[in-house]
Amino acid sequence: MKEVIVLGRPIIFQFYDQQLSQKFKVYKPWESSLPLEQFITTYAQSVEAMICSPMRIGSQISSSILNLLPLLRVIVTPSTGLDHIDLVECRRRGISVASAPTVFSEDVADFSVGLLIDVLRKITAADRFVRNGLWPLRGDFPLGSKVGSRKVGIVGLGSIGLKVAQRLEAFGCIISYQSRKKKPVSYPFYPDIHELATRCDVLVICCALTDQTRHLINKEVLLALGKEGIIINIARGPIINEMELVQCLKQGEIAGAGLDVFENEPNVPEELPSLDNVVLTRHVAYYTEDSFKTIYELICGNLEAFFLNKPLLSPVLDD
Amino acid sequence: MKEVIVLGRPIIFQFYDQQLSQKFKVYKPWESSLPLEQFITTYAQSVEAMICSPMRIGSQISSSILNLLPLLRVIVTPSTGLDHIDLVECRRRGISVASAPTVFSEDVADFSVGLLIDVLRKITAADRFVRNGLWPLRGDFPLGSKVGSRKVGIVGLGSIGLKVAQRLEAFGCIISYQSRKKKPVSYPFYPDIHELATRCDVLVICCALTDQTRHLINKEVLLALGKEGIIINIARGPIINEMELVQCLKQGEIAGAGLDVFENEPNVPEELPSLDNVVLTRHVAYYTEDSFKTIYELICGNLEAFFLNKPLLSPVLDD
Repeated sequence: MKEVIVLGRPIIFQFYDQQLSQKFKVYKPWESSLPLEQFITTYAQSVEAMICSPMRIGSQISSSILNLLPLLRVIVTPSTGLDHIDLVECRRRGISVASAPTVFSEDVADFSVGLLIDVLRKITAADRFVRNGLWPLRGDFPLGSKVGSRKVGIVGLGSIGLKVAQRLEAFGCIISYQSRKKKPVSYPFYPDIHELATRCDVLVICCALTDQTRHLINKEVLLALGKEGIIINIARGPIINEMELVQCLKQGEIAGAGLDVFENEPNVPEELPSLDNVVLTRHVAYYTEDSFKTIYELICGNLEAFFLNKPLLSPVLDD
Repeated sequence: MKEVIVLGRPIIFQFYDQQLSQKFKVYKPWESSLPLEQFITTYAQSVEAMICSPMRIGSQISSSILNLLPLLRVIVTPSTGLDHIDLVECRRRGISVASAPTVFSEDVADFSVGLLIDVLRKITAADRFVRNGLWPLRGDFPLGSKVGSRKVGIVGLGSIGLKVAQRLEAFGCIISYQSRKKKPVSYPFYPDIHELATRCDVLVICCALTDQTRHLINKEVLLALGKEGIIINIARGPIINEMELVQCLKQGEIAGAGLDVFENEPNVPEELPSLDNVVLTRHVAYYTEDSFKTIYELICGNLEAFFLNKPLLSPVLDD
């Protein structure tokens, strides 16, 4: 039987537990009373494959976890981001990693456009206004800002960022981007995030979380974006210095934010829910029936390829 | 001095009262203690121009209002919709009407796409989830539905409908439409609303409110749309039979709705705010700083043209 250890309780198991458990012998620590380390060592002498979770709480695949699994040869992560896996250590140990590089791109791009329209046009705020019964009581509601002709800077023009740009072009937004290197596109390229922020009304964060991008968006960048500026983050929380963002939002140094990710999920800074100029969602930009079905198939395909000694379907390759 | 009577307290006066009052002698019943009819008759022997409000409560420009103003020669409405004006009576009396036919098209189209993404991807519901502090307490959140490859039926392919279609194409939606007549576009055309609903996952209501479209969307159409179906209305509330919509939403006969307009504004059916599968906004699809500036300029332009005996900038022409 093909053994697979599953760490971090990936959300896919909420929807495809039964199917995965029929295809593989799946070891799930959350169904065991054993402490995690003891649970892992129970299977250490046979298990070669792992599914891990991209949600970061207590599910970092660090060298200390890898030390417990000497036979491990493959990790399958149902995510685009890889910041929860110690890739250097995996490489050193010859552990292959399979990810889901573009499965979620369209859904995440759609969601980020939804957040952008919502913040500019105050959809969630208007919904609260109506649900709270304020419409018959109060005539006033603040005007929104037009989406079209907004200057939008895409931070990280990968698979997601490119799809965000293509969608926003249909609204008449003016696109530019920052990225590690220039891409073969016609959008203006600004290697310096500070310059991008200065030139834009909206920043949409689409880059991976790395040592280089951690706290890339800090107070200086937010001040450069300016009082009319909007920030959208559907990538990873720690790319923004959250404390500085909260201060800027509270003090009106920027106009608003649409945040699907946070530095310390599932915790959201306590100041944010009282603000009307933010939209706060629970890391669901990738969260659709369609993409979970695709991801389930991709997990199975990668694991089956591994057990048949075939090439992985979606291997993570060295840069 | 160019006299203008203003009925229905148009929202533009929240933002451009001072500027309008400098350019014209503006008679505003809401600043007077006189009853409306008495207020109107006070100026009836001199006033030739009116600005009216597209918001419908107590501001219908009916023949009884027109009877009070025998010298009236022009009505300027800061709206695309004309259902608040008795156009037949205006025509009979030789009163010209100027509207704002496309000023709001882009903003309304943007907003309807925002509502569509929001309902499919549960943005407002996710924001409530986070604001209510549920994220750290509960892991579960329902999956959304992908925007791309959704079959979207546009009801009324005018200026707004066409812009909605163009935007949604960038998301990979499959567009078809219903309209009074076939348009020179490549989207499939279904003259029968029932057939459109049968073939689509989402209906976006973009048509004008007329005797033909009142309650066009009734229970039969909603049942044809089906249990996975979504309805978006940014046009006028009475195009939908609201009571039947509420029943269908409550009983799961359709999946969700994004409603910016209601039959009896500012009142919203009391069952709706307790539902999680609806987004409810306060008739703000057209509500941006940019379009209010444009509308202000268009109102002034039309009135100045009238007082100079020049052609109106945006006259309403007979069908």
